[in-house]
Amino acid sequence: MPIYNAPLADMRFILNDVFNAEQFWQANENLAHLDAATAEAILEEMAKFAQNVTLPLNRTGDEEGAHYENGKVTTPAGFKEAFKQYAEGGWIGLGADEEWGGQGMPKMLTVLADEMLFATNPSFMLYPLLSVGAGMALNSYASQEQKETYLPKIYSGEWSGTMCLTEPHAGTDLGIIKTKAEPNADGTYNITGTKIFITGGDHDLAENIIHLVLAKTPDAPAGSRGISLFIVPKFIVNADGSLGERNTAGPGSIEHKMGIKASATCVMNFDAAKGYLVGKENEGLAAMFVMMNYERLSMGIQGLGASEYAYQNAAQYATDRLQGRSAQGVQSPNKPADSILVHGDVRRMLLNARANNEASRAFAVYVGQQLDITKFSTDAEAVAAANNRVALLTPIAKAYLTDTAFDAAIDAQMVFGGHGFIREWGMEQCVRDLRIAQIYEGTNGVQSQDLIGRKTIKCNGAFIAEYIAEIRDFANDLDSDLNFIKDATLDVATEIEVVTQRILERAKEHADFSNAVAVDYLHAVGLLSFTYMFARIAKAASAKEGQFYQDKLALTHYFIQRVLPDLSSRIAKIKSGAEVIMGFSEDYFTNQA
Amino acid sequence: MPIYNAPLADMRFILNDVFNAEQFWQANENLAHLDAATAEAILEEMAKFAQNVTLPLNRTGDEEGAHYENGKVTTPAGFKEAFKQYAEGGWIGLGADEEWGGQGMPKMLTVLADEMLFATNPSFMLYPLLSVGAGMALNSYASQEQKETYLPKIYSGEWSGTMCLTEPHAGTDLGIIKTKAEPNADGTYNITGTKIFITGGDHDLAENIIHLVLAKTPDAPAGSRGISLFIVPKFIVNADGSLGERNTAGPGSIEHKMGIKASATCVMNFDAAKGYLVGKENEGLAAMFVMMNYERLSMGIQGLGASEYAYQNAAQYATDRLQGRSAQGVQSPNKPADSILVHGDVRRMLLNARANNEASRAFAVYVGQQLDITKFSTDAEAVAAANNRVALLTPIAKAYLTDTAFDAAIDAQMVFGGHGFIREWGMEQCVRDLRIAQIYEGTNGVQSQDLIGRKTIKCNGAFIAEYIAEIRDFANDLDSDLNFIKDATLDVATEIEVVTQRILERAKEHADFSNAVAVDYLHAVGLLSFTYMFARIAKAASAKEGQFYQDKLALTHYFIQRVLPDLSSRIAKIKSGAEVIMGFSEDYFTNQA
Repeated sequence: MPIYNAPLADMRFILNDVFNAEQFWQANENLAHLDAATAEAILEEMAKFAQNVTLPLNRTGDEEGAHYENGKVTTPAGFKEAFKQYAEGGWIGLGADEEWGGQGMPKMLTVLADEMLFATNPSFMLYPLLSVGAGMALNSYASQEQKETYLPKIYSGEWSGTMCLTEPHAGTDLGIIKTKAEPNADGTYNITGTKIFITGGDHDLAENIIHLVLAKTPDAPAGSRGISLFIVPKFIVNADGSLGERNTAGPGSIEHKMGIKASATCVMNFDAAKGYLVGKENEGLAAMFVMMNYERLSMGIQGLGASEYAYQNAAQYATDRLQGRSAQGVQSPNKPADSILVHGDVRRMLLNARANNEASRAFAVYVGQQLDITKFSTDAEAVAAANNRVALLTPIAKAYLTDTAFDAAIDAQMVFGGHGFIREWGMEQCVRDLRIAQIYEGTNGVQSQDLIGRKTIKCNGAFIAEYIAEIRDFANDLDSDLNFIKDATLDVATEIEVVTQRILERAKEHADFSNAVAVDYLHAVGLLSFTYMFARIAKAASAKEGQFYQDKLALTHYFIQRVLPDLSSRIAKIKSGAEVIMGFSEDYFTNQA
Repeated sequence: MPIYNAPLADMRFILNDVFNAEQFWQANENLAHLDAATAEAILEEMAKFAQNVTLPLNRTGDEEGAHYENGKVTTPAGFKEAFKQYAEGGWIGLGADEEWGGQGMPKMLTVLADEMLFATNPSFMLYPLLSVGAGMALNSYASQEQKETYLPKIYSGEWSGTMCLTEPHAGTDLGIIKTKAEPNADGTYNITGTKIFITGGDHDLAENIIHLVLAKTPDAPAGSRGISLFIVPKFIVNADGSLGERNTAGPGSIEHKMGIKASATCVMNFDAAKGYLVGKENEGLAAMFVMMNYERLSMGIQGLGASEYAYQNAAQYATDRLQGRSAQGVQSPNKPADSILVHGDVRRMLLNARANNEASRAFAVYVGQQLDITKFSTDAEAVAAANNRVALLTPIAKAYLTDTAFDAAIDAQMVFGGHGFIREWGMEQCVRDLRIAQIYEGTNGVQSQDLIGRKTIKCNGAFIAEYIAEIRDFANDLDSDLNFIKDATLDVATEIEVVTQRILERAKEHADFSNAVAVDYLHAVGLLSFTYMFARIAKAASAKEGQFYQDKLALTHYFIQRVLPDLSSRIAKIKSGAEVIMGFSEDYFTNQA
């Protein structure tokens, strides 16, 4: 059966040694309540929950799945109790404001807690995740009264939340949604339409579900500037906070999917359902993007969790599996064969995953720290810089961390040979569950468009230039015993700088250029980011003594020699341009026979 | 619902224009019965069968799966009738000798027929495929009497075949199998042991199942030199060819898997089952490898079929899906949005798959032609050269074609956005079904070891040198209007030559080196092979006029600019060597917390 041991040692190393988290927290009056020991205790508690509660429900949840019958969704056995325990532990509000019942913990810490839950049970994790996202959107845009009505119940887990964006004909392009919001005399709206792919659209985990729904008012402008956001509760909330009548909003069915089968993905029907406007009319997309950006970082964490889980199980399997002999000669003469860890190719697959995990984890904490600066810092300049950094790195965190995690999970599955394809070993579920992270919350292709368009071309490369400047400063400060990573970091920074300049120029000449090279650019900037993380890891490790730290340096070498070379092919593809892609007629693609 | 249109136009182009197949066939007395028109008629018939019979059973087969109950396996609804129809059409023996009821068709043609079946229903295809493999092993190693007893019934589809190699503790390393074969006084053997992952180990499609089983006789030498091959029929065959008593060989259970769910993957128990030695004692592995090599090329075809199926569905979806607007300005003003084919990134994913399909198909026909030379040619020198070529390219055909197909299917699934994750669209099944092709019949890692070890280092690079020489000759003959592919081909050939030389040298210095870089080398040689195929495609296309041929040249440009750059990162990784992988202690891999 699949194992999971929370990687607490690496988490401690990253928080304490790589990012000096305690110092960062203590220097900020809004975070000074947190010290390293408390953070560690929180992570240890979450590790227990993940190992003892959500891990055992992962495979049973996949086998049983969520069920839809007579307009109601039921979750697999054990999910209800686990959700209750999770809610009672205060985990839903771990990163939420204390004013609304949260614990006010920084993102640097919550990303690590999230990782453990995603590693052990991604289907389960999605239920509270959507609640947290909905809470965040409400916290930013809802009225005081709305906040008082909904936020404490969401963070206590009595109620849950959803985000209802996609319609059958409108996914990436939300400007063409059809769901209508007709105003009533009392200030409420009647919401009518169909939404699809609604995670947690119905379930049996909470008393009420607060749907955040995008819809168009009758005279709204066309396109994305005419979208408004509404609260549509499953049960109307009475003035005293008790639950009133059932709203005309509910699931029509659930999807049958490749993975995350225990997560209910609903078709939601809104039939003149009562809705409450959040913020102003036609400004709904901005509010939803607060939630979306939060989810996008979380999807990266989903990738990291899956990759860590896959790695641990593959490493254990490789240690136990005896097959063949070392090319150096017999290593275990008393056994019928050596462990497959003697084979370089098996190690290659494991090290790919491990390098991915340690760089991804550091990167998640780094982006978390930037988010914490935007939220908690009182230094306006620092906040502005962090906002730019978060804008730049959110698509990387979502797309690059899930793409590399998928590759890592595929490698880990391969370590198992034929057993990797068999359900009981758990690896195939890991791959199936992880796959969605590349697709939802904006496909990784869409993330790449966001990076190259809104976050790079639109600001004429200012965000990436600021990032490269920080990376260069860091690398230039490294001691000469770290020249191997210093040189690599400076080289990559220059390569990205040059290719970005080329993109800025080419994009002016050819309207289709940026779209055609976006994914390669995202991966190139992802490689820069991981190189930077390994530079930070290597610096922290070189200041210490012991095998643990030596191994960090060895993994840094591995990354530079065996992962980073992918950069050259990415850059060559970017240089090839758009013509070779756009020259085909539309008919060409389906004109086969 | 998923579509499939057999890519007959490309198949015709490859056979007729790229490989001048008719000329090749007519020049060989053993193949002179075949002309282009007949070949085309066969492909058209198979296209009908694939589109009308196996395609409709693909998703229902996945949903229903194979079932095990009371020691018997049943296949999903419709499989029995489809198998009967397939057998009656003479398809099982399409490539088998006419002496045993086959049609004597060359591999150049059968690979294309196989592709269509793998595209539309890989689970179904595996049943006849194992029969054909078993038939091939028997044809090469069995006695005349054994051939007469088994081969006609196998090719008629009355009986089927399996290959029983893997045991719970022994997959790649067959030298440590435990299944015993104890000789009886009458010349038969009692076979006792457990085999796992036995495709088609039991089912309801045929009256009898002929298991080919690897086992060890009591005094056999240790390791792979002590393995013998046995025929173990499900029902003992009487002297008159009728079915006798039930043998003590049968399924203990079936595996629950990620994909190919309609294919019964059995745990097989042999309990002193009656077995008949094939060939000589202790020479079983060679006989089994006849079958294995056949299967390995077939697994590459499984990849190609899936990639073609994925591409066609994604191209259709992209054409139909309206979302967003072209960066060039609105293309379809009367529609709410443009088709997603206006986006370069969507085209990139489709073109990756299409370039893979056309190069893979040409490569399969090329390897098929080499196999045909080994089987049908009377020129001993040509046979020897072709044997070397087949030895070199079999691991490429298996591993490279399935790795690139998996990437293509993943890209095609992404084109669907969220719908790619939903079962009814069929893309997620395609990915799940395809994944096994990278794993079984020797994992792609094992294929890479085969390429770099047995096929390259062992002959001191002779096989690859011969291949490169052929490629250089071909490229040097290209007209100057094809300089773009000529130059690319010659460059890649030189890069492979140089890196091969480096491998030969480094392998002498470091025993673990070849294993650690094997997968990168396989992919590098795969890229060389696809470049060579595109050179052949471009030459054939440039001799013709019309959009169809112009598109072939455009796709060649795409391949060079957007796929081939992966070579640089592969070569950089090979240069990095083994130390960075082998330096970690074995404990490191599981020592996380």
